[in-house]
Amino acid sequence: MLNRVRSAVAHLVSSGGAPPPRPKSPDLPNAASAPPAAAPEAPRSPPAKAGSGSATPAKAVETRASFSRPTFLQLSPGGLRRADDHAGRAVQSPPDTGRRLPWSTGYADPPFSSSLWPGSQVAVTFLSLASRHRRRVINAGKSRHNEDQACCEVVYVEGRRSVTGAPRELSRGQGLCFYYWGLFDGHAGGGAAEMASRLLHRHIREQLKDLVEILQDPSPPPLCLPTTPGTPDSSDPSHLLGPQSCWSSQKEVTHESLVVGAIENAFQLMDEQMARERRGHQVEGGCCALVVVYLLGKVYVANAGDSRAIIVRNGEIIPMSREFTPETERQRLQLLGFLKPELLGSEFTHLEFPRRVLPKELGQRMLYRDQNMTGWAYKKIELEDLRFPLVCGEGKKARVMATIGVTRGLGDHNLKVCSSTLPIKPFLSCFPEVRVYDLTQYEHCPDDVLVLGTDGLWDVTTDYEVAATVDRVLSAYEPNDHSRYTALAQALVLGARGTPRDRGWRLPNNKLGSGDDISVFVIPLGGPGSYS
Amino acid sequence: MLNRVRSAVAHLVSSGGAPPPRPKSPDLPNAASAPPAAAPEAPRSPPAKAGSGSATPAKAVETRASFSRPTFLQLSPGGLRRADDHAGRAVQSPPDTGRRLPWSTGYADPPFSSSLWPGSQVAVTFLSLASRHRRRVINAGKSRHNEDQACCEVVYVEGRRSVTGAPRELSRGQGLCFYYWGLFDGHAGGGAAEMASRLLHRHIREQLKDLVEILQDPSPPPLCLPTTPGTPDSSDPSHLLGPQSCWSSQKEVTHESLVVGAIENAFQLMDEQMARERRGHQVEGGCCALVVVYLLGKVYVANAGDSRAIIVRNGEIIPMSREFTPETERQRLQLLGFLKPELLGSEFTHLEFPRRVLPKELGQRMLYRDQNMTGWAYKKIELEDLRFPLVCGEGKKARVMATIGVTRGLGDHNLKVCSSTLPIKPFLSCFPEVRVYDLTQYEHCPDDVLVLGTDGLWDVTTDYEVAATVDRVLSAYEPNDHSRYTALAQALVLGARGTPRDRGWRLPNNKLGSGDDISVFVIPLGGPGSYS
Repeated sequence: MLNRVRSAVAHLVSSGGAPPPRPKSPDLPNAASAPPAAAPEAPRSPPAKAGSGSATPAKAVETRASFSRPTFLQLSPGGLRRADDHAGRAVQSPPDTGRRLPWSTGYADPPFSSSLWPGSQVAVTFLSLASRHRRRVINAGKSRHNEDQACCEVVYVEGRRSVTGAPRELSRGQGLCFYYWGLFDGHAGGGAAEMASRLLHRHIREQLKDLVEILQDPSPPPLCLPTTPGTPDSSDPSHLLGPQSCWSSQKEVTHESLVVGAIENAFQLMDEQMARERRGHQVEGGCCALVVVYLLGKVYVANAGDSRAIIVRNGEIIPMSREFTPETERQRLQLLGFLKPELLGSEFTHLEFPRRVLPKELGQRMLYRDQNMTGWAYKKIELEDLRFPLVCGEGKKARVMATIGVTRGLGDHNLKVCSSTLPIKPFLSCFPEVRVYDLTQYEHCPDDVLVLGTDGLWDVTTDYEVAATVDRVLSAYEPNDHSRYTALAQALVLGARGTPRDRGWRLPNNKLGSGDDISVFVIPLGGPGSYS
Repeated sequence: MLNRVRSAVAHLVSSGGAPPPRPKSPDLPNAASAPPAAAPEAPRSPPAKAGSGSATPAKAVETRASFSRPTFLQLSPGGLRRADDHAGRAVQSPPDTGRRLPWSTGYADPPFSSSLWPGSQVAVTFLSLASRHRRRVINAGKSRHNEDQACCEVVYVEGRRSVTGAPRELSRGQGLCFYYWGLFDGHAGGGAAEMASRLLHRHIREQLKDLVEILQDPSPPPLCLPTTPGTPDSSDPSHLLGPQSCWSSQKEVTHESLVVGAIENAFQLMDEQMARERRGHQVEGGCCALVVVYLLGKVYVANAGDSRAIIVRNGEIIPMSREFTPETERQRLQLLGFLKPELLGSEFTHLEFPRRVLPKELGQRMLYRDQNMTGWAYKKIELEDLRFPLVCGEGKKARVMATIGVTRGLGDHNLKVCSSTLPIKPFLSCFPEVRVYDLTQYEHCPDDVLVLGTDGLWDVTTDYEVAATVDRVLSAYEPNDHSRYTALAQALVLGARGTPRDRGWRLPNNKLGSGDDISVFVIPLGGPGSYS
């Protein structure tokens, strides 16, 4: 099948030009000597000066590449050129000859945008909002390049200060390491995805710097940190005597919830950096972000968008994320439109209808849902109901403001409703949902894996099909063969291209495949060599 | 144990006076000839004239009782007086000699407020918001009477019109029946709970009137209803030709989602009626509402508040609701406070802290969470952070604006922050979450039950303990003995009073019991005679 796919592509696409040398990317504010983004296997060197992590202007960056692939693919300039040459297509994974990805991770993506295939228009939705609003919608008209990006790193965190507030000597032995994987599914341009793939883990590192000592101390985290040395710790319960004793007792805060908070705030700071730098650095478009952090025995899965993570453990499927789409977040979006009607302009209504309301139906009664309802009821159609609904469509065709099909992610600061000045960003959230999996609570075998995939995988592959592929591919390899996880990632990408499912676009062999870019990480949860 | 409890109460409480005769209750707008609220067993007679269900003023009602109990308890004036006499305590259930409740339902509640017990102050929380805000909070300082109310009915729904819009003859044979159970846990006065127990099912009936024909037609519900006879049904897909064909296809709406929408809107209309009539009818306080509707083979469980419903099926526990409290709805409340800061006045902050911030901690860094976070992070304390947090406390002590411990329910339109004009109602939602259970998908045995209980039960009893009691009590009765479900409800109430758990208040026998009112419905899901 692969050969047929390859020869078909050779007829359809023309070669792209050689990309310019990879430019310097935007960096974290004040992190002057931050290590390069790609440093597989070895923990990072700590920066000479720890930055404050606050929102100060970033350094200027000269230019941006038109096309780039994850650094860990170790593509030479020639390899990058070939990857951009759609005729020379093959599923991309890190080279066998190079150093393995951290944690024996498997990775695969196709180096081309699938929309160049015949029939890709099936995935293209047109929506009309009066005639002037007829347009292609985000994520449907695909760009020529693969807008997915990925990152896989081991990151060293140097503590910023001691718990008592006293500045302490920078001592590498007292720092923390975390493993990091990120998938970034770009839309409307590759800039946001590429920026996130280079910087989000550094924002997480910045957020964790204050927690290095606290996370390594088994006692509960202090609720309050003094700013000057010698100040008594005001989290001392004696402060609660007197009138305060009428209060309910103080809440217990876990170490785990501090890491969750650090990841959440890192997403927000990443998004704020994109907003600040979007002009200077051409941060076009936006991206969904699915990130995994392994720290001190626990796996944190943070998802903002429609990518998905599942654990396959002894054949059992454990969902580690949920998707954020106009359908799953309908009530949040509608509530915002209801509370802030100025965000809807005069063109949109926060009410949902099962189809477009026609002017001649004024006065009739149609089914609707508002921000409080999960069921449907009839209402009399009024003039305002003829406006375009804030949320419309179903499944992959669901859209916010007739434009975008995901509701969480990074970037999209310039995104406007077509032929309008209405910004869409207020309805999008940059905050991920973070789920935690305690790796120490279960004895894992080498076939237990965490699979991360962008929506291109899950649109045409069920969780059960992924679990079956895990079983089929891994059983064909020796447990200590580290290439098994890369082979699995490749098999998942190839399978998603040709799955006979009634959606997506038609392959030359008359099967249906995903119309989206596909990127997959396979992270082994146990077994020999996986904890490298 | 019961005797010891009884003699202890006899020493502690004084007899209440005889209650006035039960007054006429407020009624549904324009439902002039609605049947009386209590009509167990027999389906209702249809009203002679179907009302419009719109928000028109209700009829005037002369007076309100200071104390009332569910009508199906069939208490005579003397019985009601004895129920209000705390010395004569016994768990209340419908009399054995009377007609059974519909569906062989079991019911039990204690006829007194448990806060009259020694040690009930344990359940009382004081919060200070500066000294002027020191006060008892809602749901902690219990009223003298049981503020719980209940309703169990069979309701007949006469269709209002035909789908084609033509007024059709009122024909009883074409109507629908639904079974209805409601538990209403009142706070800060019994008015809202009593009003809801008398009227909410009528609001549901009003909402269903438009759906009678649609729900009995197996074809998908029409998306649009014409208003005049003869108008072509505009849900015809031919209307989607032309420019509309660019649209995504119309959504499928199920019959089930229409019933869900009807229940949701009935809750809202009930709440609006309370707002309109709160002065004329002395609708004091508010109430949580847990409602079950059985219609056309499906069980709809609608919950707004902190009551709970579980199904115990073959020993397995199936949760049928979740609780809405300041903790479970923290992010919704914080988002509202963030988007509408005027609702917080100058006294509250939408941020959450793990304990009260002290003025001397200004400039230090304390853990916090905002509306987007599930984890915690440190922030520098600023002047605004010294305000009282919108959400504070944990578990049963969690409060919105230092006042109320539940976040959904009916009423509370007059509720203000103490010593302030700030209304709390904007943060409360009257909308239930509705879960659906298809009774036809499983073969039920006589021991399978749906248990509804107010928080007084669940505060001291786990789901598993309830399931064990179900097994223990029902196995002691013949399957066709209908009193088994009432015995089970009584056992659950008695068990919750004396459970040895480290919360609540201390019983004379040194056990700990619930400090709250307790009401329990047990609804059998199968077996002989249960579908009466």
